[in-house]
Amino acid sequence: MVKSILFDIDDTLFPSTEFSSLARKNAITAMISMGLKYDFKTLDSKLTAIIKKRGSNYQGHFNDLCRQLRVKHPEKYIAAAIASYHDTKASIQPFPKIPQTLLHLKEKGYKIYAASSGNSIKQWDKLIRLGLAFYFDGVFVTEKGKNTGFYKKILRTLNIRAEDCIMVGDREDQDIKAAKAAGIKTIRVLTGKYSKIPSKADFVLKNPDDLVSIFE
Amino acid sequence: MVKSILFDIDDTLFPSTEFSSLARKNAITAMISMGLKYDFKTLDSKLTAIIKKRGSNYQGHFNDLCRQLRVKHPEKYIAAAIASYHDTKASIQPFPKIPQTLLHLKEKGYKIYAASSGNSIKQWDKLIRLGLAFYFDGVFVTEKGKNTGFYKKILRTLNIRAEDCIMVGDREDQDIKAAKAAGIKTIRVLTGKYSKIPSKADFVLKNPDDLVSIFE
Repeated sequence: MVKSILFDIDDTLFPSTEFSSLARKNAITAMISMGLKYDFKTLDSKLTAIIKKRGSNYQGHFNDLCRQLRVKHPEKYIAAAIASYHDTKASIQPFPKIPQTLLHLKEKGYKIYAASSGNSIKQWDKLIRLGLAFYFDGVFVTEKGKNTGFYKKILRTLNIRAEDCIMVGDREDQDIKAAKAAGIKTIRVLTGKYSKIPSKADFVLKNPDDLVSIFE
Repeated sequence: MVKSILFDIDDTLFPSTEFSSLARKNAITAMISMGLKYDFKTLDSKLTAIIKKRGSNYQGHFNDLCRQLRVKHPEKYIAAAIASYHDTKASIQPFPKIPQTLLHLKEKGYKIYAASSGNSIKQWDKLIRLGLAFYFDGVFVTEKGKNTGFYKKILRTLNIRAEDCIMVGDREDQDIKAAKAAGIKTIRVLTGKYSKIPSKADFVLKNPDDLVSIFE
């Protein structure tokens, strides 16, 4: 019987892809407001290319953008972009019914854990800003991407059996396939940029807000 | 005749010392709220010692604090502290009459520049968050601390004479003495942690909000 629920964070608890896109747009708008003489489309396409090339955890996106455009005295544009980007990232909100779903699951006696990839402090930061940190009995983060070994290690650490555990996530590879290979049941939510990829999960939900129905 | 005004940023345009202290207190409160089992006083005195030792631009204050206390799984406390610290720093406000003073000076035809030490992007970030960025015709930042050479370089860059320039700041050494030695007139504001140090400035103001009176 399922007693422990593992949750992915990005695009499972909150619309991460949308917020990242909004943060990028707001940063560009802030640079233009500060006086940068380029139109939105040019800046957006150049910045998107930089992020694609360097990855989303790279810290110098706006520096690179200004360097490409040979902007003189870029500091004020970079400062405006970073401030706007961070302010947007600081205002993330969970999918509407996630907080009450988590509370409901806690009331029913489930243990709740996050199983996430990326930087540990950054992932905690998201849970805190989403107002969800207190619902989590633990947070597991891997810097390398979630593979079957990652899930097996969680089971060992918590000293629980795979069949007593279920994983909820939006990525077919890291959240579903890797967890299934560890014997864990899976729920796929069709959100974010991977939503079109077909699923072999035990349950598939169009909307993370419908999660509670599975545990009824 | 004075046509150009140089402004220090921290504790001249806004109560930087107060905000830093508040940010630190809020960060500690956030760690305790997240479940860290130490009282406020213990954490505050340990953190203050770390900041004193490592300097305020060091990035690992909260990591060091958790390491000293041998906190297991410190990520959530560090994340809570950083989030709270940044939110406080993002909410800085200028001294009450600074915005209208700067507008008034611009209307009178003065050129306004920031002359500051620290990191260029961080200093721009402060001007942007204070809502003051647009008043400034330029920003000069030195990573090493403001000396007479720094002021002479500003005069050369702007192609202005020392006697047409006045510097406003809270630090007797970097804002007053160094600027005077470059031939620049000076206004000392008695704010922040250096307020008790006596001044040889041309003008001394207890309150930065009284600045406008000097230019009448």
